[in-house]
Amino acid sequence: MIKAGIIGATGYAGGELVRLLQNHREAEVVWYGSRSYIDKRYSEVYQNMFRIVENVCRDDDLSELADQADVIFTATPQGFLAGILTEEILSKTKVIDLSADYRIKDVAVYEKWYGIEHKSPQFIREAVYGLCEINRGKITSETRLVANPGCYTTCSILTAYPLVKEGLIDVDTLIVDAKSGTSGAGRGAKVANLFCEVNENIKAYGVGSHRHTPEIEEQLGYAADRPVTISFTPHLVPMNRGILVTEYASLIRKPDGSLPSYAEIRAAYEKHYGGETFVRLLEKGVCPETRWVEGSNYVDIGFVVEERTGRIVMMGALDNLVKGAAGQAVQNMNLLFGLRESEGLDLAPCFP
Amino acid sequence: MIKAGIIGATGYAGGELVRLLQNHREAEVVWYGSRSYIDKRYSEVYQNMFRIVENVCRDDDLSELADQADVIFTATPQGFLAGILTEEILSKTKVIDLSADYRIKDVAVYEKWYGIEHKSPQFIREAVYGLCEINRGKITSETRLVANPGCYTTCSILTAYPLVKEGLIDVDTLIVDAKSGTSGAGRGAKVANLFCEVNENIKAYGVGSHRHTPEIEEQLGYAADRPVTISFTPHLVPMNRGILVTEYASLIRKPDGSLPSYAEIRAAYEKHYGGETFVRLLEKGVCPETRWVEGSNYVDIGFVVEERTGRIVMMGALDNLVKGAAGQAVQNMNLLFGLRESEGLDLAPCFP
Amino acid sequence: MIKAGIIGATGYAGGELVRLLQNHREAEVVWYGSRSYIDKRYSEVYQNMFRIVENVCRDDDLSELADQADVIFTATPQGFLAGILTEEILSKTKVIDLSADYRIKDVAVYEKWYGIEHKSPQFIREAVYGLCEINRGKITSETRLVANPGCYTTCSILTAYPLVKEGLIDVDTLIVDAKSGTSGAGRGAKVANLFCEVNENIKAYGVGSHRHTPEIEEQLGYAADRPVTISFTPHLVPMNRGILVTEYASLIRKPDGSLPSYAEIRAAYEKHYGGETFVRLLEKGVCPETRWVEGSNYVDIGFVVEERTGRIVMMGALDNLVKGAAGQAVQNMNLLFGLRESEGLDLAPCFP
Amino acid sequence: MIKAGIIGATGYAGGELVRLLQNHREAEVVWYGSRSYIDKRYSEVYQNMFRIVENVCRDDDLSELADQADVIFTATPQGFLAGILTEEILSKTKVIDLSADYRIKDVAVYEKWYGIEHKSPQFIREAVYGLCEINRGKITSETRLVANPGCYTTCSILTAYPLVKEGLIDVDTLIVDAKSGTSGAGRGAKVANLFCEVNENIKAYGVGSHRHTPEIEEQLGYAADRPVTISFTPHLVPMNRGILVTEYASLIRKPDGSLPSYAEIRAAYEKHYGGETFVRLLEKGVCPETRWVEGSNYVDIGFVVEERTGRIVMMGALDNLVKGAAGQAVQNMNLLFGLRESEGLDLAPCFP
Repeated sequence: MIKAGIIGATGYAGGELVRLLQNHREAEVVWYGSRSYIDKRYSEVYQNMFRIVENVCRDDDLSELADQADVIFTATPQGFLAGILTEEILSKTKVIDLSADYRIKDVAVYEKWYGIEHKSPQFIREAVYGLCEINRGKITSETRLVANPGCYTTCSILTAYPLVKEGLIDVDTLIVDAKSGTSGAGRGAKVANLFCEVNENIKAYGVGSHRHTPEIEEQLGYAADRPVTISFTPHLVPMNRGILVTEYASLIRKPDGSLPSYAEIRAAYEKHYGGETFVRLLEKGVCPETRWVEGSNYVDIGFVVEERTGRIVMMGALDNLVKGAAGQAVQNMNLLFGLRESEGLDLAPCFP
Repeated sequence: MIKAGIIGATGYAGGELVRLLQNHREAEVVWYGSRSYIDKRYSEVYQNMFRIVENVCRDDDLSELADQADVIFTATPQGFLAGILTEEILSKTKVIDLSADYRIKDVAVYEKWYGIEHKSPQFIREAVYGLCEINRGKITSETRLVANPGCYTTCSILTAYPLVKEGLIDVDTLIVDAKSGTSGAGRGAKVANLFCEVNENIKAYGVGSHRHTPEIEEQLGYAADRPVTISFTPHLVPMNRGILVTEYASLIRKPDGSLPSYAEIRAAYEKHYGGETFVRLLEKGVCPETRWVEGSNYVDIGFVVEERTGRIVMMGALDNLVKGAAGQAVQNMNLLFGLRESEGLDLAPCFP
Repeated sequence: MIKAGIIGATGYAGGELVRLLQNHREAEVVWYGSRSYIDKRYSEVYQNMFRIVENVCRDDDLSELADQADVIFTATPQGFLAGILTEEILSKTKVIDLSADYRIKDVAVYEKWYGIEHKSPQFIREAVYGLCEINRGKITSETRLVANPGCYTTCSILTAYPLVKEGLIDVDTLIVDAKSGTSGAGRGAKVANLFCEVNENIKAYGVGSHRHTPEIEEQLGYAADRPVTISFTPHLVPMNRGILVTEYASLIRKPDGSLPSYAEIRAAYEKHYGGETFVRLLEKGVCPETRWVEGSNYVDIGFVVEERTGRIVMMGALDNLVKGAAGQAVQNMNLLFGLRESEGLDLAPCFP
Repeated sequence: MIKAGIIGATGYAGGELVRLLQNHREAEVVWYGSRSYIDKRYSEVYQNMFRIVENVCRDDDLSELADQADVIFTATPQGFLAGILTEEILSKTKVIDLSADYRIKDVAVYEKWYGIEHKSPQFIREAVYGLCEINRGKITSETRLVANPGCYTTCSILTAYPLVKEGLIDVDTLIVDAKSGTSGAGRGAKVANLFCEVNENIKAYGVGSHRHTPEIEEQLGYAADRPVTISFTPHLVPMNRGILVTEYASLIRKPDGSLPSYAEIRAAYEKHYGGETFVRLLEKGVCPETRWVEGSNYVDIGFVVEERTGRIVMMGALDNLVKGAAGQAVQNMNLLFGLRESEGLDLAPCFP
């Protein structure tokens, strides 16, 4: 039985980790870290876990936890893990970090977009970017530190990746218009996230400056094998869960001036995702919707070729707390420990 | 492997049955009946099941189904099953009916409240009212026909039952004020259930005349050992899932004029539910909320003693599609076939 | 032109006052008090008022404001006004208080339910309880201090008042089950009011102990001409605006044992509300819904007689920010200054 | 007093017309046309209008109506008006059509995108496209037929218009990602628009094929003085009202290779909208949100220059039932009859 510790267990992503690990046959949670609720029973904070989780919340003592746990999930604010991670900890246990601290290889880019100094850049190189469908081979029993991808980024990258990789689209024209449910904003007490402020509203935010932008650019840059600069615009939607991305790019015409066909584009997706458990390439004419993936680890992907404009509209949907956070973290844990990749994640989406 | 057929598989309760049975280790669905979508793939109707359920929808042929299935779930409109059920069918297979056709023992009461003629009253006597926590002993391998309780009724009855049974409240003063999410209204295309009509609104409906009233009265009458007449008022709430009942009753004073104590009342609840997996008696001062049971088979119960008025306020919450419909149906199936009662239902509630 | 000052202009009730007074032909706002946003433009806080309100927010200086304004609206936390109100202020200007500080005549009751000491009980006697439909005669040019009723209380009292006054119901059996939108919880940054905590949920709160209880009891006690004790249970509903109350009481039977007829009960309502602009007695069989009053100053009332139980179910709906707060405050201002009572309040409800 | 008739008075746009005209000092509704509810009182359909509108619904008799009304609003399905409009009707009364029948000058384009034959193309040339801020000069007492613009189109065009007109953006790169509340889908009883299907979901629909596309292209083509082809993707958002568009385009660089400055772009917007009552150009760094325009006739516009990509992100928000339908129709009526353009439309947005 894998012993897992969670730092930040009372945030929304932390709570989802608890839910998923309850359902996991080979792992158990041994530490519910929550600085805000130390010594309070976990089920008093998340009453859904009443009579399911009997533990009390504990402090964020990473050193002590490293002695007790085989793997530590950190669902913590940006900069937190970078400030306390040590070689000693990594020598004792594996760490799956749900924050952005080790996602971006260029520390200058991290510090510019996040506006904070990185306190332990020495671990960045070692960290594996845990986008399982793309980096599966690097997530092994040898791996000590996994940088679990962001919610917007997971959805944005997976939706475009095969077409970038196969050179079917002009990445310089790529625009990602993303829409997220409100759990992505976290459980902090802010006026902007009150029910009455979010309900009956839609807005863009962080236009041209959202922190997930360089993460998407870096990963798609690997696929394109050159630097990529994109427009990324997130929006806040009045719903609890779910991310939908709508991505626009010009298709690269063939020598004869024609556009790649639907079948050719589909083949590119099939090539990369044909064997994937958690990526569902929808049938022609079907658009992804967040409701159809809610509660599950699936990413649903669809696309439409616009003959009139020469563009493709790619769409992807996932549950930001599952594939966009806790589910992918569990998937990474499964890979780290050589378990069946979908263990604990065999959840059919729940509708309505 | 138990072979299950579902008639009405594309309604919300039917869809939830499909989700739950996917997760069940000892049962599989062999028939997805849906008159509206015959020959259409199930996953085209419920896209969440894409790549999970490959079957196509079939007609409502109960006779043919009786040959193929060990158990048939009917999630159908009132009167449908009563119109086609036969001794032959019951001799071949078990039936768990999610409609109201066999819930009420007095056919005259049924016909009055439902406004339709009962076409097969001969099976009413045999049918077992499948409120598992109360009638568990009657739901056995011998049972052929289970009348699965209604959503409001399950919540209303379980919340008050121990206090009625133990004579702690005056049942003549019992008032049930119930609030339901909109999935309880079904998937029919009606103006009243459009998003814009339900959103940003709360209303009472069926005041004094809702069909679940006699069902609650009959069952609580068994507990009280005399006829019970209650006020029952359902309300429609702008949310997908969940029922909350708020029940009011005068406590029966002791000979010395004092009210029963909190501890005495709690003991009555513990007596009946202490060993129950799916009933969670909340701690003192904690009120049930629908979000804490969403997606699960739990009923959460709490209460407050009002010294000022001599009343008790009892509250219960459940997920109307799980414990209020499909979950309880699976629980009944487990009892019918001698399986672990919670098989397929070990689902932690999903929040947010 | 009446000069109005608002203390607490950036709360939800304060914001609604601003909206309503914009639409008022005989009043203008001269002071936007908001301790949290001093020197910030009002329209930066409430962007709906961009290019409509150019003023900046100011401190809560009641003395200075008393020199400038003909009337001051205080939409402030409990105890705030009581702590700073003076004879000098009241000698210069009128005050309409949207908090509870002067609503309850018995200071001991106030201090018990609110858990704070009342700092200026000397003004309680003078204050008029501004429930216009009932106390209209007392709200005159002589009145200096109006205690604007609470949102739940306005709805709860108006729904039952005629039947209590006319002796048609047994007030000892009165139970008020109330449901409110989330704007009633205010604009403070609390985890409990975050979108993801409120959405897809319904819960009761303050069961047996909500502060609006003694206010309802006091006012209905005047109608009944004796002390009244009720059960009052508020619930939080995932919507922005609106309160619905469902009230239960036993009808008082006539000497021959029969219940009062529908017509007799309706006549009692007509007697008290027949000439009221803002109370709409719905037609037989129609239940109030919050969507039908949204944005307006109406209270919609309907009722159902339950022959089976001998009870009546009374229902009332209003917009908690309008008739339940700012609208009624404007209505009171109109009465204080001898204006047409509905000036600034001729707003048809907005649907959807 | 202008006598107005409404055909389609019980749809959402029709209902909003009724609300707005109630508030109009120079117009009154004399005909509430609703084929679905003939002879039913209007306030039974829209209970918000109880005691405000006493009329009953009438049939769609355009000829009779033409004799009674000075202006007819048709809020009807596509093709309806084209099928019944005659020279005789237009000789007697003015018509403001909220459907698409006369919006597109090229009948072949209309027939292709709408999939229906146009029954009265002879009136297309005469019809004025009623986008008031752009075509104000053409909407006069001489005008007989106004094609009231679509909701998506009004928002999409106004957001980009000044930059297209002034040649600041490359229209060939223009992408419009639009998000709409559900009232835009109408009041028809369809499964896809049920509460449980829309709530907790976001989806794109009509990708590459939505009917508002050619309307946007035609109007922006006039501004660009050449044909324009765009990508337009609408999304359905779980809220009642509101449209937000996020528009992407490459800025046209100056001869020295630099991008136009923020000030230069702002000046283009100011040039066209500086004097407009209903277009609010937001301050730098402020993004439009649908909640800030709800219930009003405003369009809020903001933009962000992305130096990194050379693109501009333009954003616009409006209330689809007001500026996107009924409000703009009233604005057109005011222009037709020489009234103050904002008469009946001086409504501050309502929040929350």
